[in-house]
Amino acid sequence: MERPAEVPANAARATAERWLGDFEAALASGNPQAVADLFAPTSFWRDLVAFTWNLKTVENPAGVKDMLESVLSHVAPKGFTLSEEPTEEGGIVTAWFTFETGVARGEGLVRINAEGKAWTLLTAMTELKGFEEPMRDRRPMGAEHGQDPGRKSWAEKRAEEAATLGIETQPQVLIIGGGQGGIALGARLRQLGVPTIIVEKNERPGDSWRKRYKSLCLHDPVWYDHLPYLPFPPNWPVFSPKDKIGDWLEMYTRVMELNYWAKTTAKSARWDDAKGEWEVVVDRDGEEITLRPKELVFATGMSAKPNIPNFPGMDRFKGDQHHSSQHPGPDAYKGKKAVVIGSNNSAHDICAALWEAGADVTMVQRSTTHIVRSDPLMEYGLGALYSEKALANGITTHKADMIFASLPYRILHEFQIPIYDKIREVDAAFYEGLEKAGFQLDWGPDNSGLFMKYLRRGSGYYIDVGASQLVIDGKIKLKAGQVEAITETGVKLADGTELPADLIVYATGYGSMNGWVADLVGQEAADKVGKVWGLGSDTPKDPGPWEGEQRNMWKPTQIEHLWFHGGNLHQSRHYSLYLALQLKARQEGIPTPVYGQQEVHHTGR
Amino acid sequence: MERPAEVPANAARATAERWLGDFEAALASGNPQAVADLFAPTSFWRDLVAFTWNLKTVENPAGVKDMLESVLSHVAPKGFTLSEEPTEEGGIVTAWFTFETGVARGEGLVRINAEGKAWTLLTAMTELKGFEEPMRDRRPMGAEHGQDPGRKSWAEKRAEEAATLGIETQPQVLIIGGGQGGIALGARLRQLGVPTIIVEKNERPGDSWRKRYKSLCLHDPVWYDHLPYLPFPPNWPVFSPKDKIGDWLEMYTRVMELNYWAKTTAKSARWDDAKGEWEVVVDRDGEEITLRPKELVFATGMSAKPNIPNFPGMDRFKGDQHHSSQHPGPDAYKGKKAVVIGSNNSAHDICAALWEAGADVTMVQRSTTHIVRSDPLMEYGLGALYSEKALANGITTHKADMIFASLPYRILHEFQIPIYDKIREVDAAFYEGLEKAGFQLDWGPDNSGLFMKYLRRGSGYYIDVGASQLVIDGKIKLKAGQVEAITETGVKLADGTELPADLIVYATGYGSMNGWVADLVGQEAADKVGKVWGLGSDTPKDPGPWEGEQRNMWKPTQIEHLWFHGGNLHQSRHYSLYLALQLKARQEGIPTPVYGQQEVHHTGR
Repeated sequence: MERPAEVPANAARATAERWLGDFEAALASGNPQAVADLFAPTSFWRDLVAFTWNLKTVENPAGVKDMLESVLSHVAPKGFTLSEEPTEEGGIVTAWFTFETGVARGEGLVRINAEGKAWTLLTAMTELKGFEEPMRDRRPMGAEHGQDPGRKSWAEKRAEEAATLGIETQPQVLIIGGGQGGIALGARLRQLGVPTIIVEKNERPGDSWRKRYKSLCLHDPVWYDHLPYLPFPPNWPVFSPKDKIGDWLEMYTRVMELNYWAKTTAKSARWDDAKGEWEVVVDRDGEEITLRPKELVFATGMSAKPNIPNFPGMDRFKGDQHHSSQHPGPDAYKGKKAVVIGSNNSAHDICAALWEAGADVTMVQRSTTHIVRSDPLMEYGLGALYSEKALANGITTHKADMIFASLPYRILHEFQIPIYDKIREVDAAFYEGLEKAGFQLDWGPDNSGLFMKYLRRGSGYYIDVGASQLVIDGKIKLKAGQVEAITETGVKLADGTELPADLIVYATGYGSMNGWVADLVGQEAADKVGKVWGLGSDTPKDPGPWEGEQRNMWKPTQIEHLWFHGGNLHQSRHYSLYLALQLKARQEGIPTPVYGQQEVHHTGR
Repeated sequence: MERPAEVPANAARATAERWLGDFEAALASGNPQAVADLFAPTSFWRDLVAFTWNLKTVENPAGVKDMLESVLSHVAPKGFTLSEEPTEEGGIVTAWFTFETGVARGEGLVRINAEGKAWTLLTAMTELKGFEEPMRDRRPMGAEHGQDPGRKSWAEKRAEEAATLGIETQPQVLIIGGGQGGIALGARLRQLGVPTIIVEKNERPGDSWRKRYKSLCLHDPVWYDHLPYLPFPPNWPVFSPKDKIGDWLEMYTRVMELNYWAKTTAKSARWDDAKGEWEVVVDRDGEEITLRPKELVFATGMSAKPNIPNFPGMDRFKGDQHHSSQHPGPDAYKGKKAVVIGSNNSAHDICAALWEAGADVTMVQRSTTHIVRSDPLMEYGLGALYSEKALANGITTHKADMIFASLPYRILHEFQIPIYDKIREVDAAFYEGLEKAGFQLDWGPDNSGLFMKYLRRGSGYYIDVGASQLVIDGKIKLKAGQVEAITETGVKLADGTELPADLIVYATGYGSMNGWVADLVGQEAADKVGKVWGLGSDTPKDPGPWEGEQRNMWKPTQIEHLWFHGGNLHQSRHYSLYLALQLKARQEGIPTPVYGQQEVHHTGR
């Protein structure tokens, strides 16, 4: 009997191997057009630092060609190897792979269409050659076996570092803001051996959570929220109570050995061009100290620069009034009349807590709001990637992060719209109740729902954990309209309604993060950097033109050595890797030619 | 063409399925002899709580039959199912499986010989039905969605529990000793919803490590040392420095929400027969409090009750003298003469630290000592189960624990002897150097090395991390002999040698853990419980008769409601599960008929 011709056991594997082989050969030929020809007419290549020293998505063969014309001469990509068995679904072959460049190792994910062309490609740097993290089989020994008169113990060395860094020696990186973002990035940099100080105004790591209203729990579930290196244990609650996440951040900071300056406020920063370093003046628990880092990272939080409204008459109000970020919690307002201006997350949370504490609460809705109940959001929105079910299906946190990162922002709304169609259907009675109560709903400008609103503008929604039922039941009173003025005794609306109030909470949101640059470095620098966050989707609060990536986040800005880090716990975890690699490369003098440098279209004042 | 008879793709699977099927059928038939017939003439069934409510190894068909005659009428075992693909090596088929009993679920590991008979069987309870741990898909929600006027936050509820447990309400379990053992058990019990207080004399969790000499690092590697639920991160050092493990234990205690009473000393304990509870008087930071737990666990550490020697003349010595457990570290002894009595771990560590600090150090060796360098011990002794290589081979920590537990103590030395043969060979020059320096070596009574010494007597060895080279080089002076007396100025040996000393350290080891029972409950109770630790191997410091398991550890003792917990981090991690399940069953009133109750052969005074 004749031996049958060898046919690949797995057609998906054959497709993936062929594409990767062609891709590597085309890259090696140095011919950008040949590489571009491997991409579908509508296609996306997202690169996280590996090819572009940037976070950058290029589109279609023309975009691929343009990018490679800039970078191919120096990147030296090779060694593209499948890292697990490719799969096929609906005519699309999905393949995970690893690769390397001249200076780094990377991983990627490609989706190949029925014509054998790439539809989406993700390439991401994982480590710099020669600067691999000391983990797993590279972990430190800890004990120093042998004899060494006068040797210092771990505790002595750690104490010495904490006492001298920033005083006798200067950090490479200064991170302003010691919340989850600063802490995650600090952990990455510590691993990479980049001397770093984190400054934080609060007394303890985790206080940015602890100091918020007492009933607050995370709105994202545990599977989405892991920090780098040390995942939450399997008994961690789905939605972590704020004090519990505060404790976790505090212990994480300690066991990760971060140089965390609590009770420290940055006062001013300027780039010293002669010395090639920043000069940052901080107040550390009453003592003024000047730090001279090479790189300055703002990790101050995208919801940290309050938008304080300027309503006529605010100065004459006799009761308590404050921005939602300053709200002390409901305990002092039992039996009092409270008016909350706004109808997004903070407004709902504060209204519910005030009602639970026995206050008479009115919410003033000034514009439509998108509402999704937490349960269906978890089930339909996150469940496939971040859940026990996902883990059981082999979708680890890292894999979920990579899958998420592989979906191009340009078409992400197309994946989101069906999720919200489903939610609208299953929760029809809930939404009917809200509308009956007079609540003005929206689903985003293109019905793409919550996550797109988050990425585009970071606001405009409420993840319902109970307040909506209070609105439906009339327990939280609802009033739609615009504020005309604040009076001595309450809020006057444009329709003439007067809402008497002992307390007014302005749940009026937050400004762009470059506001922090204005405060610290100056308005000129803030304008040079421009607006931070958003995709350029040309939807409300996210003006065009299209950016392709989140503005100024985790990547080079128009001010060299000035960076932004932040976002939710998922983003802090995943993108801290790419920012840390960029910072490490600069510390080590590895050339980092940036392709597709962020342009500035909006000052974001 | 005729269809071929179905042959199993995997012969190992067929063997395993056949044995498990026969085993389940024989158990179901209620016929102990039928089950016993499935075991090889020389065979071992180790049960961890699932069949015996005990930790118990029975031997050979006769032992199996005897055990089943006692337990088969009430255990109701069934549902034996392979949990992964069985393997075959050297004629032995190894199979992992799960099963259940009337009240619990379990897991197991069987090794089947070429005749199709069981050679070793391990059965272990994993959870009690109806009392599954709230983990993974059963984890708590954290947030309580909905509306609840006056609701308490997580922080408020946690503070309330901490303020009332032991004051207004009584714990089910009191754990005496808040080191790694008490903490690991406390975490398990918290998960199982068993109200528990841990009392610890030190100021903070982790102080039992922090307060030891400054150069101390763990002698076991990180892969062996994980605590339950929250493994060390991948960047954790191989050998953790003592202060770093101290910090980890402190944060672990906090994030696991243990009720940990620091600065608290137990003063006395008595069983109140009328009330069916213990009455334990503790001093909590100066305040005397009486606790009334149902169960009392000694987790005071197997190396915590010092053997203070009684040499003639100790009272007249003019310098500093103390037991090794009281040694403050070397800093005060630069340029001084130090004599250390003993030649095991503590003696070596203290000698090396004193030498590094500039003291003149003499070690007095009174009996032979077993020495293994740390590197080969890791490579040959632990590497197959606890290492990066093991993890890469799919041996998770849990799997390694189970494999380890599946090797019967009776024949464990047979697996150990070749390891030490190998080490003796590769480190021949090292041992030659030690002997040339006059060091008296041994390899255990049957050449089975370090781990058997640990299990049998908990002493008699040194894991070399550098001190041996100091002995070889004569930097630590060595003197063999017996102490005749302590003089005003030093140590006088039986051969007439006088060793002048400014400091004498008695590195003379520790007594049996029932010494703690004597202190707290009384000598009568201590004698009733008997010696703790050891296997009954009839080797030095471990008198026979053969016990089959470690005496009195993690299982019912002759005093009901009195338990011992401890051992190294591996044992604390793994056996805390079985002890916690026994305690939970008693809390819930689940019948726990004990087979093979611990007998007492030695008072262990």
